[in-house]
Amino acid sequence: MTDNLPPGVSLSDFESAIGELRELLPLDSIVIDNPAEVRSYRDPWRVTPEEVLPSAAVLPRNVEEIQDVLGVARKYRIPLWTISTGKNYAYGGPAPRKAGYIVLDLKRMNRILEVNEKYGYAVVEPGVSYFDLYNYLQRTGSKLWIDPAAPGWGGVMGNALERGAGYTPYGDHFVFQCGMQVVLADGSVVETGMGALPQSNTSALHKYGCGPSVDGLFTASNAGIVTKMGIWLMPEPPGFKAFKISFPNETDLVPIMEVLRPLKLNLVIPNGTPVVGPIYELGHVATRAQYQDGKGPISEDALRKLVSDYDVGMWNVYSAFYGPPPIIENNWKVVEEAFRSIPGGKIYLEGDRPHDEAFKYRIELMRGIPNMAEYGVVNWAGGAGHLDFVPVSPINGEEALRQFYAMKERLGEYKLDYCGEFMAAWRFMAHVNLILFDVFDLDEKARVNECYNHLIDDAVELGYSEYRTHPDYMDKIANTYSWNDHSLLKTHEKIKDAIDPRGILAPGKSGVWPKHLRAG
Amino acid sequence: MTDNLPPGVSLSDFESAIGELRELLPLDSIVIDNPAEVRSYRDPWRVTPEEVLPSAAVLPRNVEEIQDVLGVARKYRIPLWTISTGKNYAYGGPAPRKAGYIVLDLKRMNRILEVNEKYGYAVVEPGVSYFDLYNYLQRTGSKLWIDPAAPGWGGVMGNALERGAGYTPYGDHFVFQCGMQVVLADGSVVETGMGALPQSNTSALHKYGCGPSVDGLFTASNAGIVTKMGIWLMPEPPGFKAFKISFPNETDLVPIMEVLRPLKLNLVIPNGTPVVGPIYELGHVATRAQYQDGKGPISEDALRKLVSDYDVGMWNVYSAFYGPPPIIENNWKVVEEAFRSIPGGKIYLEGDRPHDEAFKYRIELMRGIPNMAEYGVVNWAGGAGHLDFVPVSPINGEEALRQFYAMKERLGEYKLDYCGEFMAAWRFMAHVNLILFDVFDLDEKARVNECYNHLIDDAVELGYSEYRTHPDYMDKIANTYSWNDHSLLKTHEKIKDAIDPRGILAPGKSGVWPKHLRAG
Repeated sequence: MTDNLPPGVSLSDFESAIGELRELLPLDSIVIDNPAEVRSYRDPWRVTPEEVLPSAAVLPRNVEEIQDVLGVARKYRIPLWTISTGKNYAYGGPAPRKAGYIVLDLKRMNRILEVNEKYGYAVVEPGVSYFDLYNYLQRTGSKLWIDPAAPGWGGVMGNALERGAGYTPYGDHFVFQCGMQVVLADGSVVETGMGALPQSNTSALHKYGCGPSVDGLFTASNAGIVTKMGIWLMPEPPGFKAFKISFPNETDLVPIMEVLRPLKLNLVIPNGTPVVGPIYELGHVATRAQYQDGKGPISEDALRKLVSDYDVGMWNVYSAFYGPPPIIENNWKVVEEAFRSIPGGKIYLEGDRPHDEAFKYRIELMRGIPNMAEYGVVNWAGGAGHLDFVPVSPINGEEALRQFYAMKERLGEYKLDYCGEFMAAWRFMAHVNLILFDVFDLDEKARVNECYNHLIDDAVELGYSEYRTHPDYMDKIANTYSWNDHSLLKTHEKIKDAIDPRGILAPGKSGVWPKHLRAG
Repeated sequence: MTDNLPPGVSLSDFESAIGELRELLPLDSIVIDNPAEVRSYRDPWRVTPEEVLPSAAVLPRNVEEIQDVLGVARKYRIPLWTISTGKNYAYGGPAPRKAGYIVLDLKRMNRILEVNEKYGYAVVEPGVSYFDLYNYLQRTGSKLWIDPAAPGWGGVMGNALERGAGYTPYGDHFVFQCGMQVVLADGSVVETGMGALPQSNTSALHKYGCGPSVDGLFTASNAGIVTKMGIWLMPEPPGFKAFKISFPNETDLVPIMEVLRPLKLNLVIPNGTPVVGPIYELGHVATRAQYQDGKGPISEDALRKLVSDYDVGMWNVYSAFYGPPPIIENNWKVVEEAFRSIPGGKIYLEGDRPHDEAFKYRIELMRGIPNMAEYGVVNWAGGAGHLDFVPVSPINGEEALRQFYAMKERLGEYKLDYCGEFMAAWRFMAHVNLILFDVFDLDEKARVNECYNHLIDDAVELGYSEYRTHPDYMDKIANTYSWNDHSLLKTHEKIKDAIDPRGILAPGKSGVWPKHLRAG
């Protein structure tokens, strides 16, 4: 059957559990005996040598089947690792926190339950991807836009639950979430917010019901299994105008962020604004091997040649306006003038650079059209691996430049390229670092791991940390949030023990372990 | 000492508790022996005959003193009812859920800990009122606006925690909250979100840290004592333009809400839009007694005379634009045209009606200037009482009219006036009903109570309910959120028992009772 048992579960208990699951679920709902199928739940990009495979996967079709699985998991205390699309490979993909967990794969629950044109929202199940929702809206002639994450195969729900971001004004996906259905570890089903009202007609319209708002508890979390979620959709605006501005110098980052801050704070620019470095900008159309022999990091000369070949900047700013054309033009005038105060910028509008693949896919994302273009960046280093490091800090030019240099230097020490962008949101910036590596190069992967740990420590010293991470680093990152003897983490643990007393749901997710696994 | 003991606490335990508090806290921090002072914590507008007085009040000056109080409360299992400013008299004011609780009055913790001009936020303690914050910003020459609730004496934190709303584009106060410090029942102090990171510089900039987001747990809740909160503030916009549009007929409500929905959904109108009925509109400048002899409800003739005397509409729409003047003018054109499609509307801009007190105070609120004008509405019925009933439903004309007629009829049955407005937010409307009554008229108060219960039942039948309420009705309203055998409420209870095992924090708040008080 398996030699990869869940932690703390005996072979005979495990066999009994699988036997019971087989009685409860259709035959094809349990993945266990086919090694290739089991291996499809691995993290193909792990940088540490240990293989983290699930013991099995179960694929329920509905809430009742989830309840059946939970019953068995509770009985034998088997950890379940819930995934929806499982496609965020920067953060572990479908693989569990520890080897031997059973993956609870919700991809078959992929119905779009409602699209409400009048009020601008959709209600989706976990398996619905951005592509699914977009195609459905196109097919039905909807006038609603989605806000996709960069890779369109991602899950609408999973991304919001992990507090992902997109590129339209609806980019803070958890803010635009409204109403959830959650199955708790004991099998009970809860509707949050207004959905708890029988015959409610506002579950996807008003974010809070009566009493505490629990939606946040189920984000980045192992508190329950979310099976349904409302997400607000933006009505097609009467006009759209995208721009790209490229700046020639690394140090231009300082004035760029200083110009951006008030434009973002005042929402003159209504969507998240990435300020993109050269490799993030071009890694999906070029590879390092085309520019230098051997491994990284890329030399300054090669970098300059890359930038010059494609005529892009050392920093490239993307954003868009949405609304009636006269309003767009007014805002554009303000933004254009502000950026013209920085010497050397080149300003482009839609249509200006027909062969600029980066501009093209960015425009699509800002228009709510999902695609996979950016994903190609993983080929830059050869071997298609990446791991993301995304600290959050105030929108500030000096701070951005300092982070950029520090990160580049640290990555360089480990012979890794800096492939980053600063994503300016409302009041903060996320410094998105894609650490690219060759999955077949064991030495490089070891360096990535060491570097990643180093980056976490560097960040803490400077007062910032990451808002999400790969399962392998969850404990370490969670422990950086250590104020007052880890009192927040202890609170998470207290709540975890109360609503999942058997500790079966995703033990270790975001650093939160159930009681019986905490001691170890 | 007191004959008003906390539920389940013996006189000797209570005396020991007070004795210990007296050793721990300065003399003036404990209110108990002065009946007038204790009575200052009553709900002056209770409509039911039972007197609900605390046994005592304690007024800590800082977190350490709160921890001291918690220690004593845990030891003797004394319920604490936390208030900040305690000024929301529509919902019980400072009075506890049950007689005998000790009120934990945080009004002395009233420091403005930080105002950040660059990033647009403030960090405040519980006792900071809208007036306090506004005056501070004015005094220091700040260019940041606040978003006050209608009565300016309300608390910035308390209002956000109870999910109150204001009238600028920053009107959803919980959305604009960022970062909290919370003292849990066990005395441990937690920073939520990015604040859990030592030396964090993003606690008031980025709403989520690593792992579950718990901020919502502490809203409308008895899960902890919030002692500090970040709140985003709007930078002064380059332009501001307010309007009022009055419509002559009750049935105009249908097209008004239909016109409003897309304007709100698309944020052409960026702030919450009240659509105000005549008594809500004029109750702060006129009284019923001036228009008819005897009690309510007001006759149709008298209502028409009132409306005509002040030249207002049966419905009066208020909103404003914020931003560069050309953008304002463009949006205003769209809004003006949309409302002109409804015959009979009268359109006013700032300055048009210098003697219109309602327009005046509404403009102030939309400009972020706190005031107490609207509060005068409580004098309409004589005797200054009111109780709020605020169901939430989709923005919809037919639905609004149906609710208006149903509510008016039900109130009329109980000889009460309809004093309501529909507040259109992004995707929902809150139907704000102020039930006005004479606090000295026992018969009228009995009718208000019966009517209120009736209104709750009416609403549930139609699929909607209230998002907050007076303590007396918390159980009833919480029980309307009954989907799947009250599974959400049961989840609240589970969490409550885990983080407040002695059940000392505000038992019964939002219908959530600790285990030892649930059975009863």
